[in-house]
Amino acid sequence: MSLLVVGSVAFDAIETPHGSVPRTLGGAASYFALAASNFTPVRLVGVVGDDFGKQDEQILRRRRIDLEGLERAPGKTFFWAGRYNQNMNERTTLVTELNVFANFNPKLPESYRDSPYVFLANIDPTLQRSVLQQARRKPKLVALDTMNYWIERTPAELRETLKHTQILMINDDETRQITGEHNLLRAAKHIFKMGPKTLVIKRGEHGALMVHNRFLFSVPAFPLEEVHDPTGAGDSFAGGFMGYLASAGSITDESLKRAMVYGSVVGSFTVERFGVDRLKTLTRHEIDARAKLFSRLTAFKL
Amino acid sequence: MSLLVVGSVAFDAIETPHGSVPRTLGGAASYFALAASNFTPVRLVGVVGDDFGKQDEQILRRRRIDLEGLERAPGKTFFWAGRYNQNMNERTTLVTELNVFANFNPKLPESYRDSPYVFLANIDPTLQRSVLQQARRKPKLVALDTMNYWIERTPAELRETLKHTQILMINDDETRQITGEHNLLRAAKHIFKMGPKTLVIKRGEHGALMVHNRFLFSVPAFPLEEVHDPTGAGDSFAGGFMGYLASAGSITDESLKRAMVYGSVVGSFTVERFGVDRLKTLTRHEIDARAKLFSRLTAFKL
Repeated sequence: MSLLVVGSVAFDAIETPHGSVPRTLGGAASYFALAASNFTPVRLVGVVGDDFGKQDEQILRRRRIDLEGLERAPGKTFFWAGRYNQNMNERTTLVTELNVFANFNPKLPESYRDSPYVFLANIDPTLQRSVLQQARRKPKLVALDTMNYWIERTPAELRETLKHTQILMINDDETRQITGEHNLLRAAKHIFKMGPKTLVIKRGEHGALMVHNRFLFSVPAFPLEEVHDPTGAGDSFAGGFMGYLASAGSITDESLKRAMVYGSVVGSFTVERFGVDRLKTLTRHEIDARAKLFSRLTAFKL
Repeated sequence: MSLLVVGSVAFDAIETPHGSVPRTLGGAASYFALAASNFTPVRLVGVVGDDFGKQDEQILRRRRIDLEGLERAPGKTFFWAGRYNQNMNERTTLVTELNVFANFNPKLPESYRDSPYVFLANIDPTLQRSVLQQARRKPKLVALDTMNYWIERTPAELRETLKHTQILMINDDETRQITGEHNLLRAAKHIFKMGPKTLVIKRGEHGALMVHNRFLFSVPAFPLEEVHDPTGAGDSFAGGFMGYLASAGSITDESLKRAMVYGSVVGSFTVERFGVDRLKTLTRHEIDARAKLFSRLTAFKL
């Protein structure tokens, strides 16, 4: 079933100990869409500038991502530059130029308004809510990402948007910040009162934890010998997660667990190369093979 | 089968946001022995002072831990005082008084010299090796813990002791420090060349990762709503791990995986209360019930 993603499309300049790229396709919506495209048809809403060329677009089109909702505005595309430290566990933002993204106001094309699965990537919670208001019918599933900036500056708006969200996908710190509660299980109970009934806590190299009101599920990050660029790992996780769920059609405890595994699998591929490079060629066959390795990594018999 | 542990027995003063205790049984060997005693007969080698009373000893004796190797020396028992921060992810050592532990020279009673399973808790690597030299026959399995102090100050001695070790159980930072390699899988390859064929990386609230030359296995920490005192979690993990292996009798890929789960289970109980309190009453029945919850926490079907 169709999966709608709304979020940033950007150009990134990335430096890691393994090399650097001066300009590569980036942004949460790009990573998400490319990751999810392995599982289900994806519709993208975002904004780019005049400098967004045919070959940039082709990266997305080749994965059959629907770009009817990709707005073109006069000016430059959102640009981000960052540098990772030697161990790639910290990064410094060198440049953030919002450009056309500063005035992003997501508009759903008519053909997107019935999307059953919706992912609201990290943008202003008011804009996230406007996406839901444009839907012709209530989506089957809405998942949302956010960040410290919105948690601090627009807490009331975020709370309002969370009322219409079933899955919140954030990291440990954001979970603690939204709830004012350090313990993640107790924090989840606060979140459940805000609307979402499922909290997915992304923990980077430590994997992810799902706290659902009926169960807990933990998935590790896939141990890799070579991590070339951590950029986009979390958005790729979200794309694999939501892409799988949209393809599964039904949301059950078992499909949610599999979604966690597929999210972690796709995230692990992303970081093997720079930017979206690995996602360009990733196949479902490769994903399924690595998912089997996840079974071996975690399965035991008592 | 019998499991020998050599390491510190101490009194701890602990402060956490949940309370404080001025003096409670502590030390790596105490936590390890209590944890392992749920699975197998345990023999302890350590040293205590005149202040180590009958009721302290009874905590260990009640779990049928063999104390023939617990030496009594004139003076005071090793004393450690520490305080955890609000989130219990950092702790400050307030006092370290080595006392009789400063001159600890482990002596194996005759009856201990055939121990098939040996755990060398974190002490001077030269003393760790002297334990192995006192064995009448080569143990079936030797596991070792160490810390940054020995890695920095006695690297050659540590290397020599590692040659006689099958399992190295340390944390992420120690793994990186011993090998000079940030990536844990590449670090493991360095470790394999030093002697151990299995590396167990303890990651606190993020669980543990086993890197074996044939396979990888990851286990999460059990998500808890109440962590009262993290002291001893790693040593309890090691005790559950080695205790289970000694009880299983054979060391196979499957029993090593189960050992990871039982280690994580016992560690999760330890932190629910202060010091060794929870370990005093822990039963195999409770351990098995929580191990089943670990299955539910990690199992998925593709």
